[in-house]
Amino acid sequence: MEVLRRRVAVALTRPDTGSGALLRGITILAVLVSAGMAQAMSLEDIRDHLVNDEHWVVLICSCLFGLEFGLRLWAAPEIDENGQVDHEPGQRSTYLLSFIGVVDLLCWTPVILLPAIGTGDWLAVLQMIPLFKLGRYIPGLELVGTVLRNESRLLLATLSSLTVLVPVMSTLVYVCEHDAQPEVFRSIPHALWWGIVTMTTSGYGDMVPVTLPGRALAGLAMLVGIAMLAMPVGIIANGFANEVRRRELLANYRLVSSLPLFRDLDAHCIADIASLLRPQVMPARSAVLTRGEIASSMYFIIEGEVEVQVAAEPVLLGPGEFFGEGALIENRPRKATIRTRKTCRFLVLELTDFHALTERQPEILKRIRTVSDTRN
Amino acid sequence: MEVLRRRVAVALTRPDTGSGALLRGITILAVLVSAGMAQAMSLEDIRDHLVNDEHWVVLICSCLFGLEFGLRLWAAPEIDENGQVDHEPGQRSTYLLSFIGVVDLLCWTPVILLPAIGTGDWLAVLQMIPLFKLGRYIPGLELVGTVLRNESRLLLATLSSLTVLVPVMSTLVYVCEHDAQPEVFRSIPHALWWGIVTMTTSGYGDMVPVTLPGRALAGLAMLVGIAMLAMPVGIIANGFANEVRRRELLANYRLVSSLPLFRDLDAHCIADIASLLRPQVMPARSAVLTRGEIASSMYFIIEGEVEVQVAAEPVLLGPGEFFGEGALIENRPRKATIRTRKTCRFLVLELTDFHALTERQPEILKRIRTVSDTRN
Amino acid sequence: MEVLRRRVAVALTRPDTGSGALLRGITILAVLVSAGMAQAMSLEDIRDHLVNDEHWVVLICSCLFGLEFGLRLWAAPEIDENGQVDHEPGQRSTYLLSFIGVVDLLCWTPVILLPAIGTGDWLAVLQMIPLFKLGRYIPGLELVGTVLRNESRLLLATLSSLTVLVPVMSTLVYVCEHDAQPEVFRSIPHALWWGIVTMTTSGYGDMVPVTLPGRALAGLAMLVGIAMLAMPVGIIANGFANEVRRRELLANYRLVSSLPLFRDLDAHCIADIASLLRPQVMPARSAVLTRGEIASSMYFIIEGEVEVQVAAEPVLLGPGEFFGEGALIENRPRKATIRTRKTCRFLVLELTDFHALTERQPEILKRIRTVSDTRN
Amino acid sequence: MEVLRRRVAVALTRPDTGSGALLRGITILAVLVSAGMAQAMSLEDIRDHLVNDEHWVVLICSCLFGLEFGLRLWAAPEIDENGQVDHEPGQRSTYLLSFIGVVDLLCWTPVILLPAIGTGDWLAVLQMIPLFKLGRYIPGLELVGTVLRNESRLLLATLSSLTVLVPVMSTLVYVCEHDAQPEVFRSIPHALWWGIVTMTTSGYGDMVPVTLPGRALAGLAMLVGIAMLAMPVGIIANGFANEVRRRELLANYRLVSSLPLFRDLDAHCIADIASLLRPQVMPARSAVLTRGEIASSMYFIIEGEVEVQVAAEPVLLGPGEFFGEGALIENRPRKATIRTRKTCRFLVLELTDFHALTERQPEILKRIRTVSDTRN
Repeated sequence: MEVLRRRVAVALTRPDTGSGALLRGITILAVLVSAGMAQAMSLEDIRDHLVNDEHWVVLICSCLFGLEFGLRLWAAPEIDENGQVDHEPGQRSTYLLSFIGVVDLLCWTPVILLPAIGTGDWLAVLQMIPLFKLGRYIPGLELVGTVLRNESRLLLATLSSLTVLVPVMSTLVYVCEHDAQPEVFRSIPHALWWGIVTMTTSGYGDMVPVTLPGRALAGLAMLVGIAMLAMPVGIIANGFANEVRRRELLANYRLVSSLPLFRDLDAHCIADIASLLRPQVMPARSAVLTRGEIASSMYFIIEGEVEVQVAAEPVLLGPGEFFGEGALIENRPRKATIRTRKTCRFLVLELTDFHALTERQPEILKRIRTVSDTRN
Repeated sequence: MEVLRRRVAVALTRPDTGSGALLRGITILAVLVSAGMAQAMSLEDIRDHLVNDEHWVVLICSCLFGLEFGLRLWAAPEIDENGQVDHEPGQRSTYLLSFIGVVDLLCWTPVILLPAIGTGDWLAVLQMIPLFKLGRYIPGLELVGTVLRNESRLLLATLSSLTVLVPVMSTLVYVCEHDAQPEVFRSIPHALWWGIVTMTTSGYGDMVPVTLPGRALAGLAMLVGIAMLAMPVGIIANGFANEVRRRELLANYRLVSSLPLFRDLDAHCIADIASLLRPQVMPARSAVLTRGEIASSMYFIIEGEVEVQVAAEPVLLGPGEFFGEGALIENRPRKATIRTRKTCRFLVLELTDFHALTERQPEILKRIRTVSDTRN
Repeated sequence: MEVLRRRVAVALTRPDTGSGALLRGITILAVLVSAGMAQAMSLEDIRDHLVNDEHWVVLICSCLFGLEFGLRLWAAPEIDENGQVDHEPGQRSTYLLSFIGVVDLLCWTPVILLPAIGTGDWLAVLQMIPLFKLGRYIPGLELVGTVLRNESRLLLATLSSLTVLVPVMSTLVYVCEHDAQPEVFRSIPHALWWGIVTMTTSGYGDMVPVTLPGRALAGLAMLVGIAMLAMPVGIIANGFANEVRRRELLANYRLVSSLPLFRDLDAHCIADIASLLRPQVMPARSAVLTRGEIASSMYFIIEGEVEVQVAAEPVLLGPGEFFGEGALIENRPRKATIRTRKTCRFLVLELTDFHALTERQPEILKRIRTVSDTRN
Repeated sequence: MEVLRRRVAVALTRPDTGSGALLRGITILAVLVSAGMAQAMSLEDIRDHLVNDEHWVVLICSCLFGLEFGLRLWAAPEIDENGQVDHEPGQRSTYLLSFIGVVDLLCWTPVILLPAIGTGDWLAVLQMIPLFKLGRYIPGLELVGTVLRNESRLLLATLSSLTVLVPVMSTLVYVCEHDAQPEVFRSIPHALWWGIVTMTTSGYGDMVPVTLPGRALAGLAMLVGIAMLAMPVGIIANGFANEVRRRELLANYRLVSSLPLFRDLDAHCIADIASLLRPQVMPARSAVLTRGEIASSMYFIIEGEVEVQVAAEPVLLGPGEFFGEGALIENRPRKATIRTRKTCRFLVLELTDFHALTERQPEILKRIRTVSDTRN
């Protein structure tokens, strides 16, 4: 039982395993069928043909989602708070109270509520909720969420400025306009709608000021709107720069520690190297270096395999090995073309950083040279 | 009397005290009632039912705002220029001439002006003014204001470019369009309205060029508009990056000086440490570290309490203490899960910075080790 | 004659002198009258009343602009290429071929062209041209221009991507829509107009796709449009950050060299200090430091005067002097409130930078201490 | 044959040679004629006059594009993967499978498909495809592409958030609105169109919510839309900053190595210098330095020629030489005006960096001084 629960937990958290991929496939399919059905049912000419199928779709999708929810709840103790299977016991209540837990719970409610609400609008809303499940499968979304959370205080400050500025501007425009257009600027709440549409620069055009003072105020509102728009952009740009740098540094540190060349260096050296490296992914069968090219960087292979087209027989290099150091050390053009055989992950050390690093840490240059010499 | 004035000043400036929270609550309520009443009165079908209540609402809100204004004016000598209660005498004129002082003054004028202006539009505008009071309670708004003030010269330069470009573009479009659409592009002032709507990319669609040269010019105006929009964004993004970094450094410096571990270090060391730390807030009952995880940082507790789930009896750590250093020093996975008990504020030292710091300042590593050893 | 020409050149280039301010005032007035007249003449109901005045306004404004142009052309040899009066001879041809030179030339052509073009549309366009003269008086505009010029290659690359993407997207939408809406999507050139309006997110709404494939393509076009919009923003944000930092450094270097405290330091030291200082402007009568406050920075006075409210008799400090160092050195709260008497320009040294600097350059700390001791 | 193929390859890849410029000219002309013809044919009143010419235009353009494709395919083995003619053999399959290869292939298909599809809409689409060829001639586009590719994972994450948020918001608004406006919010797919138009802040205005809950949701959608818009901007801004810096460093390193002054320095020094220099381009006949100006930087000439107006006979300086060092070393105003004779490319070393560099590397100052002394 324990072992089974662990296997289920692995399947639920790792879509790169076979059973995980299957689970993910079924989930995504059910999500799309559920959302697609809701949309189709809202189209008058299709609705009549589908009205019987709808019940079955709701039933099947709800059961699948219910099953998934059950499995996730059951396996929750195996999954730690970073969403990874771990020896640390996770807690069922943590899962149940998380955003995604609530989503999972709501996904299978249509089947219960169906008798009560019928196949109307609210069913459509419930059928859209499973879309949030897709968030689990979007790589990078977690980073976006972290940045938004880190900067939430500043973002809230700029958004709450709008709650002050929109009503004030709207009331002023209302006072200017409601005599000229009593049907359009009918009341301050109507003007508020105009205000939010204008200050986000959406500009539907359903309410447009026509008097001179109204237009002057509207022009001001647009400019203020742009400044308000500029602020979250600036805050988020800033937040991304910091968070991405932080993560890259950490990931590099771990990768550098695992490279044979650096394995027994002390932590200070590794931290120094990590701060200079930059990750790069290249597809299979593309040229990393071209013979005769001026050297600009050296490469450490993290994943994949490259072939050095130096002699009749190409030389293969795999994870943990490096290449491209010769041209940097001797300051000469590339001697050989090097091409990826599989998709490769590299850590790249730029020429200027290479020289800065080897000056600070001559030991590294010596090691690189040793390996480099045995190759020739 | 002196003591009472001081107490009032404290209540007015610190919403985290009991009487401060009460004052804030009453103020926010009155602001919302005032603004809501103005909106309700503008809706034709509700207006008749409310016409009598309106007088009472205006009367009560105005009295409350008048009272608040009186208290703030009276207590002004106790409040220094950073809005904090201090031994330094503040000045009543400073308060009266500040933006928020003028707002406070205008908030209670409706009751005086009511006989003159009636319950018409201008009353509605006056009833919206108290919304600016909310600015006092939006955290982070002060930072937004500082950035805007710091960058005001550049922002004005980009906005004043619009005062040149909009009339020129509008006149050209007017010349192209007013024969084709004499009713729409009626005059240059009408075209100016089109210009501002277009160059802010609002695009209401009430005035749209139809001739070929008019549309070509309009397309150009949109592209120029985007470039103009890009500039304030760039300026503000830049300004936020600098200001946020500056404040974080300063706040870190103060927090680091107060930590027991660093208390008697000289100022240079503290400044060095402060530049590497990053503040982080975590909610209660969340895992800071998970056992078996690869170590990426160590934590200094500024506020709150964490529990180390290492043995049968969990160990508690409080403000001034630190944790997570072991895995960094020995370069091994985490030995224990550590969980917050209350909302906690930490200063986080990343792995790479930890190694850089302890190399530069071996004294710090020694101190950390000493504490770390006594724990085991 | 030489002397007169020099005086004229000074008046033309320095609006902070008496005659310069007068010249600027007259120019701005004439610009606004000229542009305002063009606008008024386009309003049908006013036009008839103004038709006689129009000729006089054109005549007078043109003469003023002609006079200004003549003066600038005559004085051009006194003005160097940075727009400053200098001993280096400038060249008339340089002025004549510059953008602003062409503007100055065009400004007085209405009076010549009046008989040919009458008081019609083209006169209005000519009357708008003087608005470009205002660029001379907008502080910071030169910086905006420099950033745009520095980044022009990248900005052009993103804009020229639009010249490829807009026609392709528009043709596809045209193919989808012109059967459904033959009157709206009448031809590909019409669809191009839709394309540019959509991809700049202006969205007038005069042309809206209604078919399913048309809307899908339109949605894609909007997303691509946002990405295209993001690029110039990113490029410009980047450009501002670099250019502003570069200028600040240089300005600081000059100011630091002029401070008595640093006057005989060697250039390396001054460059080091300059990179740490930050300029700040404060209005008259505001508190720079408040007694009891925790110290966060020290201040060098560049311009203006402050008073130290330390004893019965306040101490005055002027340009070249500094304050706020005591609390930093001794790591204690401020002992006195310091208030500006006039508008002041400071160079601010933050606490963390102060400690970093004084560690690297102990000589500076010694000098600061010497001055600081004589004060007490 | 080999030699001919090589010449063709050079002409195809280097528009700065004579035959390359001719090829580029013909290609751009054919692209514009092709796209222009498609547009003209869609205009009803012109179509009839052009219907015969259309066939000829399609025939000629297709032949030209076919010829170009043939040449590129034939010469592909001479062109390496960076698009440069090289001794390394390129591969025909690489070209054929690249984006631009597919474009080149599609460009000449109209002539084959013409009998099948006639001169209708699909022909117009095919005639637009050659526009993508223009991408080859837009400088800087490659950098834009690299940044987009580097940041593609994050950009996809933000865009795929929209695929979740748009349907959810749209369904909610549909539920609120379709009773009030059954003709406008006819179905959820219709509401999806509203959603994407609103969240990209395009705001066509063809579908506008009118109920209170609908408008509240729409306001929320706009704010979320702005936050979503802010993210790609932040990501791209960040990506540009990193990529531009990386390239500049590398380019500087190569240029510095080629300067006579630095030629025999070791790689560490060159890397150090490279990180401080900034490239700058100046048009012919403009003043780089002006006599009497305060010195702010020194210049290394990479390309072009300047004249030093120091004596009766101006001194000429060419590539590899430097100037402006005197005023920096002696901290005095410029002694001479220096003017470009041709378009010049410089590497600029700012004053503060100059002092930082010469302190770290006194050898460089000595060398500069040696050259500087021989000049006087």
